Amino acid sequence: MVEDGHPGLREVAAALAPHAGRAYVVGLTGAPGVGKSTSTNALVGALRRRDLRVGVLAVDPSSPFSGGALLGDRIRMEEHATDPDVFIRSIASRGQLGGLSVGTPQAIRVLDGAGYEVVLVETVGVGQAEIEIASLADTTIVLLAPGMGDGIQAAKAGILEVADVYVVNKADRDGADTTVRDLQGMLGLAGAYSDDRWRPPIVKTVAARAEGVDDVLSAIDAHRAWLEQTGGLRDRRRARAAREIEAIAVAEVRSRIGDRRGGTALDALADRILDGKLDPYTAAESLLDESARELH
Amino acid sequence: MVEDGHPGLREVAAALAPHAGRAYVVGLTGAPGVGKSTSTNALVGALRRRDLRVGVLAVDPSSPFSGGALLGDRIRMEEHATDPDVFIRSIASRGQLGGLSVGTPQAIRVLDGAGYEVVLVETVGVGQAEIEIASLADTTIVLLAPGMGDGIQAAKAGILEVADVYVVNKADRDGADTTVRDLQGMLGLAGAYSDDRWRPPIVKTVAARAEGVDDVLSAIDAHRAWLEQTGGLRDRRRARAAREIEAIAVAEVRSRIGDRRGGTALDALADRILDGKLDPYTAAESLLDESARELH
Repeated sequence: MVEDGHPGLREVAAALAPHAGRAYVVGLTGAPGVGKSTSTNALVGALRRRDLRVGVLAVDPSSPFSGGALLGDRIRMEEHATDPDVFIRSIASRGQLGGLSVGTPQAIRVLDGAGYEVVLVETVGVGQAEIEIASLADTTIVLLAPGMGDGIQAAKAGILEVADVYVVNKADRDGADTTVRDLQGMLGLAGAYSDDRWRPPIVKTVAARAEGVDDVLSAIDAHRAWLEQTGGLRDRRRARAAREIEAIAVAEVRSRIGDRRGGTALDALADRILDGKLDPYTAAESLLDESARELH
Repeated sequence: MVEDGHPGLREVAAALAPHAGRAYVVGLTGAPGVGKSTSTNALVGALRRRDLRVGVLAVDPSSPFSGGALLGDRIRMEEHATDPDVFIRSIASRGQLGGLSVGTPQAIRVLDGAGYEVVLVETVGVGQAEIEIASLADTTIVLLAPGMGDGIQAAKAGILEVADVYVVNKADRDGADTTVRDLQGMLGLAGAYSDDRWRPPIVKTVAARAEGVDDVLSAIDAHRAWLEQTGGLRDRRRARAAREIEAIAVAEVRSRIGDRRGGTALDALADRILDGKLDPYTAAESLLDESARELH
């Protein structure tokens, strides 16, 4: 129902409301090739050793296909597929109404309501996606690997802005220490992590051998404790719920306009723009006015 | 004004309206490393030899920085920087209200109104961006290079859906013919290009030596002629204008909600969600109702 944007989801959402807010949401992002799937797999293993129920949402911003049919999933699922306390699902975000911003929060709500104590949301760190993941998560992990580009690249990828925990994966490779040092340098330069702000730790892992994964969990624990102590967890979740409301409202308006497009209102306006008789801003205004008039 | 979403842009848009629709918009996308900047540069050169004025918008979905300060631009601009008939500009789309969907169409309108006969819109083909580029362009070029991933990758990248012209760049490298054959195979398998649909041609280039670039222009010409002959150009542009109106309307609603967020309405709703007393759909509905009531 979440994936299809099924109308009945509203009813489900209402029923889920009293069960919200129990799951701890961990976001995991990084450039292609840093080992996201392997790291997710290792983290699930470590969380299971703590006897926690784990939901995994693998968000693929480049795919229009949902439901875990793609290769990466099958590989990931092999180890935990028979574990009833692990739920793994791919979510496509491309081409969907509202993308990540509507579907993923609802999927998190469903897993939360179903009693998964940790929800891992994994996505490739390109473009808008990693920002959106960070806005969904209580703790955001940014994965890097040795030799994956220089400072400019990292700054462009926006990792300084979103990470609560840095993980340098493939730490057995040449250049791992350089990557850590570069990262420390950037964090120092950024200078943003003074007294009262969280200073993201840098953890080294070799996810393929599950090395360092418990250190990642410890870093998540520390960040969670800090968030709870400072009141930041509630603030973060309030901002998240506000964005969620906003995204649903915007999607609703989009769908009302879409209904009008089924008619001729929008096409007629578009034609007048093509004929040079109208500009898009005036067109948008008249559409909104019309839509508001109809409501009341 | 476009980049800042300046309120005065509405007035400018109204003044530009009668001058719209003269520029031909070419979209250019592809994975990182296929040679997009080099190809853009070569295309600009070829268009200049036809004595056409060219605007270039380099959309960077991973960057919050606009204005051409980044490295790629400076390299690109070197050759055409002193040419008064070429205008090159970076647009950041990350974190902006509406992203590509609002800013880029307006930037195209401005260049169109300023008399640029061809507007090249270039972006990296990851995630949502290349779909959005295709929805903005009259003709969309998808760049590939030998050895850049297999069939699954290509399908995931969505290139089958958006390309009007395929360009296999770096065609002097090993594997170029394999890439062309794979592409032909996929197009054949897709089977979607029967009689009355445009069948995307595959062009080989070595952009760094400007080889094959005139063939790319010929392919664009052929596609344009086909669009004009079938009435597809007007249809495409109508759909584009409709999407543009929709995006502006949605951005406007978002900004109205944002204004309310400055107050306490949204935060109060978010708090009730956190306390398990409300679900996000009901919250969104009440927000929209309130907002519509205020309008009238």
